[in-house]
Amino acid sequence: MRDAYHEELDSIGDGLVEMARLVGSAIGRATTALLDADLKIAESVIAADEKVDDLQRDLEQRAIALLARQQPVATDLRIVVTSLRMSSDLERCGDLARHVAKVARLRYPNSAVPSDLHPTILEMGQLAQRLVAKAGQVITTKDVDAAMQLEQDDDEMDLLHRTLFQHLLDDRWSHGIETAVDVTLCGRYYERFADHAVSVAKRVVYLVTGEHADELTTTA
Amino acid sequence: MRDAYHEELDSIGDGLVEMARLVGSAIGRATTALLDADLKIAESVIAADEKVDDLQRDLEQRAIALLARQQPVATDLRIVVTSLRMSSDLERCGDLARHVAKVARLRYPNSAVPSDLHPTILEMGQLAQRLVAKAGQVITTKDVDAAMQLEQDDDEMDLLHRTLFQHLLDDRWSHGIETAVDVTLCGRYYERFADHAVSVAKRVVYLVTGEHADELTTTA
Repeated sequence: MRDAYHEELDSIGDGLVEMARLVGSAIGRATTALLDADLKIAESVIAADEKVDDLQRDLEQRAIALLARQQPVATDLRIVVTSLRMSSDLERCGDLARHVAKVARLRYPNSAVPSDLHPTILEMGQLAQRLVAKAGQVITTKDVDAAMQLEQDDDEMDLLHRTLFQHLLDDRWSHGIETAVDVTLCGRYYERFADHAVSVAKRVVYLVTGEHADELTTTA
Repeated sequence: MRDAYHEELDSIGDGLVEMARLVGSAIGRATTALLDADLKIAESVIAADEKVDDLQRDLEQRAIALLARQQPVATDLRIVVTSLRMSSDLERCGDLARHVAKVARLRYPNSAVPSDLHPTILEMGQLAQRLVAKAGQVITTKDVDAAMQLEQDDDEMDLLHRTLFQHLLDDRWSHGIETAVDVTLCGRYYERFADHAVSVAKRVVYLVTGEHADELTTTA
């Protein structure tokens, strides 16, 4: 049986997994709101972000209480400090999903994204959702190989982001400046969302190996 | 005389102030690079960001070592945990200055910013630099009123950001899509830089009062 201390540590982990689930759902729904110009879904994403913020604040307080009460050292200390950082990353993912939803709301009843860019934005949204789902999984499994895999998925996001820019900068772009601004910002939001998901995974690598992910080579 | 523990705590504070100084210089120089299309300055900003990253990693390790060795509780614990968060904010400011410099480098020998937007971008750059300078000061003085003041300065940034969008979305915009994309991204970088500076100040408020800045009203 686990003692109260490790139970509390586990429950902080569970909280992080729950945050990952919530922000994954949020970016998926925000993408739907953006592409379908669905105001209701946009509003629901914007409202739901408060829950993510509350969860983060709660996790933070529990982590600090744990530090004060149990004074962990070595690996346990590293777990608590890393949890604090992961909760920041995931909270930020929530903000970025909310930003996407706000663009959707701003342009309602139109879609902020022209139809020829729907496939790219859809892919970015789906990839973002997969990335944070994997990050959530890695928090539980502590699977270093799976964690390192996220960086490769992130390369895919960079590729999609570049595709977006190619469309924007193509001479045949006919959607005007406002749409270019919207697409530029949304592209940035998806890219940053992915960065934070990768960052969560990298922190797991650091936890398990004691080395920063950048210093390891993949086993692939 | 202060004991070794508090000396170490002070030196972490000094490290944060040094980070604030470096990223303040970086955003000022990046703005110069952007407006003057100065490749040398752009390159120097990009290269110098490594120092900020090193400083952050060093501070992080020292903070964790302090937690492990001294096992602080109450206020001291809060100071160490908050320092970790502030170092993340400042590291991120460094990244954003580097992003601005990269836009400058990408468009060299042209300026990425059309001349009618120079005054607005210059103001954003100067304001960003002032904000982080004030944040650095607040880390030392722990002056809650000064910290709360930063939120008002941030309103000014929001105003400048809106001015930028007005230019972008004006029918008379004649600088094409590429420039619109560059200006949109740079505007976002300055805005986020300011957000992180404000966040540092808010964390000082939390340290001193135990309450989140949003829950306090200004004394003004």
